[in-house]
Amino acid sequence: MANPRAIVCLSGGMDSTTLLYEVLARNYQVQTLSFDYNQRHRIELEASRVIAERLGLPHKILKIDLAQIGGSALTDANTAVPDQSEQRQEITVVPLRNTLFCTLAAAYGETRRIDEIFYGPVKEDFQVYRDCRRVFFDSLETALSLGSSYERKVQIHTPWAEKTKAEVLRRGFELNVPYDLTHTCYRGTRPACGKCDACRERLTAFAEVGVIDPLAYEV
Amino acid sequence: MANPRAIVCLSGGMDSTTLLYEVLARNYQVQTLSFDYNQRHRIELEASRVIAERLGLPHKILKIDLAQIGGSALTDANTAVPDQSEQRQEITVVPLRNTLFCTLAAAYGETRRIDEIFYGPVKEDFQVYRDCRRVFFDSLETALSLGSSYERKVQIHTPWAEKTKAEVLRRGFELNVPYDLTHTCYRGTRPACGKCDACRERLTAFAEVGVIDPLAYEV
Repeated sequence: MANPRAIVCLSGGMDSTTLLYEVLARNYQVQTLSFDYNQRHRIELEASRVIAERLGLPHKILKIDLAQIGGSALTDANTAVPDQSEQRQEITVVPLRNTLFCTLAAAYGETRRIDEIFYGPVKEDFQVYRDCRRVFFDSLETALSLGSSYERKVQIHTPWAEKTKAEVLRRGFELNVPYDLTHTCYRGTRPACGKCDACRERLTAFAEVGVIDPLAYEV
Repeated sequence: MANPRAIVCLSGGMDSTTLLYEVLARNYQVQTLSFDYNQRHRIELEASRVIAERLGLPHKILKIDLAQIGGSALTDANTAVPDQSEQRQEITVVPLRNTLFCTLAAAYGETRRIDEIFYGPVKEDFQVYRDCRRVFFDSLETALSLGSSYERKVQIHTPWAEKTKAEVLRRGFELNVPYDLTHTCYRGTRPACGKCDACRERLTAFAEVGVIDPLAYEV
């Protein structure tokens, strides 16, 4: 029997990259998908391309300009990305981003008869982002199945939803994930800023596991 | 008390234009929204702009390139739009189009605190398009409410879902809808082709009501 096929949504960050390695370990035939949503940290698209290429996997970048929706520091060049110490992570919310990404993935899958989608939110995410809760993904699976042009059961797997970033990282070391190739910083700088919410969460996870992050950070 | 606010998704066709007039008759304060999805009948975007302008309403065009998803004659320049007589309407399905449009509308509304969305599928639509069924919209409302960044109840109103195109047209005449400004043809030609599914359904509705369509058609 042929391996099952899946789409893995790959941001190029540590969680989705670990997810990709996890899905491959589960013997799926994988199509990677990334989203160019006019994010200021566009450098993550290059990271995702490099990671997929290293694994010899098909990689598609879908464009959806979320700057035209507004409301987030991640897409609005006039709104500064806050340091984590400012405790203003809600400004990094991009309205309904996960809904749009999963729907685009399901649409892309519909034309290629792929019904399984893997998506990488971790336990910490849903403290700020309501669309990282499993109850939301369950509901979206139903809507996407009902809305597809033929009878199908869309599945959005989120194996990290109950795991902390540190737990994901431990699994990643077992899978030999090349964390030096991933990108995390919301500010999109290289070396990474080390101060935004994304950098701080990453560094905290590495510290918890007791490993030095291979990425360079501003001093 | 101020009038309630709503987003009306306006394609520039006869159903959504009638919907717009209906929503205004219900005393909503309206933001119109159209979608540039790389459709070959882009002329409908100009129609929607003109209609909103005539009513003095704010009009926003959101871009989402669905040609990159593929699978439809409406976005693929290499796939011919069939005549209705060919009975191949399924080739005009754009995967999860309504899901994407409603989600974009909800995201746009989220940043502006507008929770009510009006969308214009008619009874005939759900014979071909599964994402025109009310059961689908109910499910999507739940997913969008759960996925929004704050607690809100997204509503997607589809007042035409139980009405035929002819019934919508009868209501439109009561509301003085300027059907000469609307665009319907999938082929995007002016004069309209008169042969594609969209043109045939429109002409059938006008014939049923016993009114001459003010649009020009190829002879």
